Formats: sequence, structure tokens, C-alpha cells
Amino acid sequence: MEVMRVLHMNKGNGETSYAKNSTAQSNIISLGRRVMDEALKKLMMSNSEISSIGIADLGCSSGPNSLLSISNIVDTIHNLCPDLDRPVPELRVSLNDLPSNDFNYICASLPEFYDRVNNNKEGLGFGRGGGESCFVSAVPGSFYGRLFPRRSLHFVHSSSSLHWLSQVPCREAEKEDRTIKADLENMGKIYISKTSPKSAHKAYALQFQTDFLVFLRSRSEELVPGGRMVLSFLGRRSLDPTTEESCYQWELLAQALMSMAKEGIIEEEKIDAFNAPYYAASSEELKMVIEKEGSFSIDRLEISPIDWEGGSISEESYDLVIRSKPEALASGRRVSNTIRAVVEPMLEPTFGENVMDELFERYAKIVGEYFYVSSPRYAIVILSLVRTG
Amino acid sequence: MEVMRVLHMNKGNGETSYAKNSTAQSNIISLGRRVMDEALKKLMMSNSEISSIGIADLGCSSGPNSLLSISNIVDTIHNLCPDLDRPVPELRVSLNDLPSNDFNYICASLPEFYDRVNNNKEGLGFGRGGGESCFVSAVPGSFYGRLFPRRSLHFVHSSSSLHWLSQVPCREAEKEDRTIKADLENMGKIYISKTSPKSAHKAYALQFQTDFLVFLRSRSEELVPGGRMVLSFLGRRSLDPTTEESCYQWELLAQALMSMAKEGIIEEEKIDAFNAPYYAASSEELKMVIEKEGSFSIDRLEISPIDWEGGSISEESYDLVIRSKPEALASGRRVSNTIRAVVEPMLEPTFGENVMDELFERYAKIVGEYFYVSSPRYAIVILSLVRTG
Repeated sequence: MEVMRVLHMNKGNGETSYAKNSTAQSNIISLGRRVMDEALKKLMMSNSEISSIGIADLGCSSGPNSLLSISNIVDTIHNLCPDLDRPVPELRVSLNDLPSNDFNYICASLPEFYDRVNNNKEGLGFGRGGGESCFVSAVPGSFYGRLFPRRSLHFVHSSSSLHWLSQVPCREAEKEDRTIKADLENMGKIYISKTSPKSAHKAYALQFQTDFLVFLRSRSEELVPGGRMVLSFLGRRSLDPTTEESCYQWELLAQALMSMAKEGIIEEEKIDAFNAPYYAASSEELKMVIEKEGSFSIDRLEISPIDWEGGSISEESYDLVIRSKPEALASGRRVSNTIRAVVEPMLEPTFGENVMDELFERYAKIVGEYFYVSSPRYAIVILSLVRTG
Repeated sequence: MEVMRVLHMNKGNGETSYAKNSTAQSNIISLGRRVMDEALKKLMMSNSEISSIGIADLGCSSGPNSLLSISNIVDTIHNLCPDLDRPVPELRVSLNDLPSNDFNYICASLPEFYDRVNNNKEGLGFGRGGGESCFVSAVPGSFYGRLFPRRSLHFVHSSSSLHWLSQVPCREAEKEDRTIKADLENMGKIYISKTSPKSAHKAYALQFQTDFLVFLRSRSEELVPGGRMVLSFLGRRSLDPTTEESCYQWELLAQALMSMAKEGIIEEEKIDAFNAPYYAASSEELKMVIEKEGSFSIDRLEISPIDWEGGSISEESYDLVIRSKPEALASGRRVSNTIRAVVEPMLEPTFGENVMDELFERYAKIVGEYFYVSSPRYAIVILSLVRTG
């Protein structure tokens, strides 16, 4: 699987599009807002002289969320400046995603964004008809590599993106006296599972660590000393990568696929060979890689439970949420739509476009049934880092 | 007509797309290459210390030409550096067009562009897998206004774009005791013509002068002192804006439209009301606006004839090119396709999508017939400017 080509959300504006099914990701952006605002405040306080600030949102995707983070950042800076008794700096904003992302959607929404920014900020350095103090550009490319000029950024944000790997983990195998890269041995599963061999666990962990190290090294070059990053992505609270919290969305999707294989609709070998380019990291793994890279210090590292629709869960409401059967099924449908909008482009090349409706129909039911007897949760990592030196 | 919304080339990869019908524009880029290379050499010689260069291509459009100018600029800088005994600087490249442009096409072609740049430049500061010394971004917005941070650019390039106005010129009219903006009185025509009233000539000239002044003022903010611009666009060599060279492509398109109006296929009133947001400026007008703006000096201002397919014409081959009837008709077809790829999105909202095939069928014939008896030419302006101060 070429991740660069297939890792993009469902395009356009239709029923199965990401634009119409991205409420969970929007909720996750809201959850990270407090930490982001805090980081921006510290950034602005320690850079009181600077007149131009470089900002990047990595993995901006395409849809209503694409400009949401950036809007929040602009609003926060705008609100901070009067308190800090300084003029609003020039904002150089970059929106990044892979080249296969639907950038046209974002570009088309920019005039409205500029209008809003200018109307809100009149008299504060914005305005005079043209977003003259806020310059937005699109930067296509993988964040697992350099994207921006050296020391050009002050603040990096990324939400719901860093759990995607640069490639599907693979294993080394012998073939005709040569060592080749081969598919993981992960029968009937599409991500780490209780039945996966330890070699699959290791391959996944290694791929994440390699990718995250490259990510940090690249940003280390691009950020000014004292620059900050706020990253939120799916992770896990336990060391064990096979707890429900870490992998159950994939476990249930594998169930849906296997039920279709049993009926001869798809081939079981294809399920064996397919593995999602995804990883839910633990805080221990994150700290280990950050320490190894060496140019960032951790300001905050929080891991909190959220429900599968991106809603926060307080420790008190941790037990089973009692749902009626119709409520559970409706929730299953929404979760199925959310996940479809993200993973359909990855699944299609292997399983075929024509089985997607059926697959996500089954998945919606399986998730709905599960919601009736359980209250599944993800763990969301919110990480605030400072570029030292 | 909302120029921001309708001024974009025909999208995608189909038969009538700009991507498939942009050879003329590619020829014009080649024609400007000598002046561009000269300007880049002067820039590099007078900025020998600088390690990061900001470059913008304004009106990059979408298709094979989108990355052509940028490729040329990167190649030229790459070839100059060894001669000047300096390392290749970091290149910050911005590709600009209106938000309605097909940026997805450009973003999707970037990985290939980086591969080519890295392969060619190995050992010269490029390479190490990821275009690490060349960073490309897309900047959606109108160049008749600010697009980039203050003093962030060293070199601005624009080809086949500045003959497009920011809006259709209009006249002031009285209505219910108020002065309102009204359509030009330009019966049966869609651009300045021998039969257009003087008020239409004036309105067009004024709109161009206003737009070009805003263009220069915006770039003046964005370029560093000593920064350079090379601009090529359609213009005219005579003071009279109604010579064939200045306007005949529109004259023949109006003929095709009028022939359809005579047969009741479209309404004549719609032709009267439609005016193209285009202007072919004279060198006198250009000099006047550059002087008025005041922050650029002219290094070169050349106006040369080219044929309607973008081929250069030497002074000697100035007379009628003798063509057989089939050759003339084939040439007419190509010119019709080229112009359709550019103006169809402007014409559609007024005349309807369903008449476009018929319109450009007629246009191809009219242009073909004209090619049999004449050798029409455009005049291409190549302007090299230096930001003073």
C-alpha cells in the first residue's frame, strides 16, 4: 500500500465525505484547545519583540475542520495581544497535508476565512481589505520529512494525524536467498490484536518510533529555538497495545471484513495481507523517542479517554453509558460513517470499491451492537513541546 | 461577473481542459526565458551572501505549465551557482493563482517535481531525499492585492496572467437619482472594438491602470530592495487599442456569438452586456503606471509579435504565412481549443453550458477562415523590473 497515495479523507461534499463526517475530529480539536491556548500564550510572552510569526497546521485535511484550528490560533493570538500590550504580529500560516489531499476545498474556503479574520480584527493590524496581516498557504507533502525552510516556524499544530504511519509495517523474509520485505503475519486481522504474533507488535512499534523520530527531527530544523508544538492524536494508556482502548475500532472492522469473507464476498487472504498504517502509542514510547531526538522538552503530556464520537469522558462517567437499542445503533452508524470517511481510500485498492457500502453497513451494525453492551473509548494524547536551544 | 469565481482555466484532463490545450502559454514562457535568466543572474550576483531566496510565480494556473516556470527558475539558479562559486541557496517557492484554480492538479504533481529537482541537483545542496532545499507552497488569492509577507520575496515571475483584469470595466449611470455601476455600452462586442464608444475604451484603460497600480504596490511591499520581477503578458504596440493585434481574438469570438444570436440560439442582449475582463496595454500605459507607483525601475521592456499559437515571429517573416485551406482550418481549431480552455468558465454563466460546443465549433471555423487570408499576431510584453530603494 502506498500510504502517500491512499491516506486521504473521502473527498468532496457527499454523504460519505469527510467534510460531512468529521464531527469527532472537530471535538478532538476542541479538547486540545486549552493546551494550545496555553502554549500560544507562553510563546507570545517569550517572543514579545517578534513582528512576524510562522504557524503550521500539519495534516489539515479537507473539510470544515481544515480552517478550524487555524481560526482558533488566529483568534487566540488576537485576544492575547491587547492583554500583552503589543500589536498583532504578521501571521504566516501554512496548511499541510499529503499531496493527495483535496486542497481545492480549502483554497475555495479561504476568501471567506479572510473576510471573517478581517471583520473581526478591524483596527488590530488586520484589515484594509485583503487579510494583509495573515497570509495563508498550502504545503503539500509528508510531515515525515522536511516541509518548511530552516527556522521559519514559531508554532506547529497537528490534530488527529500523528497516529497515521508513513507506511504499513512489514517484516523481513527470506526469498531465493535474499532478504525481502514481506507482509506481517496477522491472520484475519488488520491491526495489532490479541491474536497477532509478537513480531507484528514489534514491527508496528518500530515503525511508529522511526516515523515519530523523523517527525521531531524535521520540525526541530524548522522551528526557531523557543518555538512550540501542540500535537493531539490517538494513543493508549496501557503498555499493552491490545487493550480495547488501543485497537477495538480495527478489531470490529476486521470482524465485518471476516463476515464478508465467510460468505465469499471478499477473499480472506486479502484480509490477512492488509494492515492499517496506524499506531496508538503509549506515553512511555513518546517520551523515549522525544528523549532520543533530544531537541524538544515536554511542557505537557496528557492522555485522556474520549468516547468514539470524540466526546470527552469524565472519570465519574466512566462506567457503561446506558443506551436504548435504537440509540446504540444510531451511534454505531455515526461512528461507521466517521471511520469510513477516513479509511475507505485505504481499503478500496485491496477490497474493491463495490463492497464498501456493504462493509460499512455491517460495520455500523457491529459497532451499534457493541455500543448496546459497552461504552468503548479511545485515548487521546495531547502533547505540548518546546524547541530547546 | 465575479472574476474571482470564473477566471480559471478549464479544469481536469479532458479534451477541452487547459492541461491539454496550453501549448501557446508554454511557448510564451519559453519566449520570456532569456529575460528571466538575465534577471536571475543579476539578482544572484547582487545578493551573493543570501542563503534563502523567496520566489513566486503569479497566475501559475493548473497543468503542465504550472511547474514549468518554477522548473526553469530552479534550473537557472542551479546552473548559475557554480559559475558564481557559491552554494545553491534554499529556495522558498510559492505558486499563486485565484482560489478557484485547480490546485489539486499541482499538488499531485509535486512529488514528481521534487524527485526531478533532487535527482538533477545531487551534491549541490539539494537532495537527501525530500527536496530539503526547495520548499514549494500554493498561495490562493488575487495578485491584485497582498499575497505574501512583507519583504519575503526576491524574485517574482508571471506569464500570460497580467492581461486579466480584477473585474469587468463598468460605467457610471443614473438610476432613480442615484449613480450606479452599469454595463458598458458595447453593442454586439465583448471587448474594445472599432465600433465601441470612447467611453468603453476609457473604462477599460482605467481599469487596467488601477489594477496594475495595485499589483505594483502589493509587490513593492513583498519584494526585498533589489528584488526583481519578470512579467510577460499580452499587450499592444500601437496607441490605438482597436488594431487587429490588440483585440482580434475577441472580435472573431463576438462574430461567432452574433451568428448564434442571429439564429436565435442565444440572446443578443447577453452579448451586448458581456465584456471580457481583459486588456492589452501599450508600453506607454505601462511606463506611466510604473512611474506613478514609483518603487520599480525598468530594466527591460520589450514588445514582440507572436502568432496566435504563441510562436515567435521574426521581423522578416512578418508577411502573410501561406497556408493551405486544411492547414488554416487545423490551426483555427487549435486556437479555438486554446482560447476555449481559458474563456469557457467566463462565458458559461452568461450564455449557458449547452451552447459552448457549438460556439467553439463556429469560432474554430471563423478563425480557420481568417488564417487562410491573414497571419494574425498578438503582441507579447516582456517586462523586467527592479525593486529600488
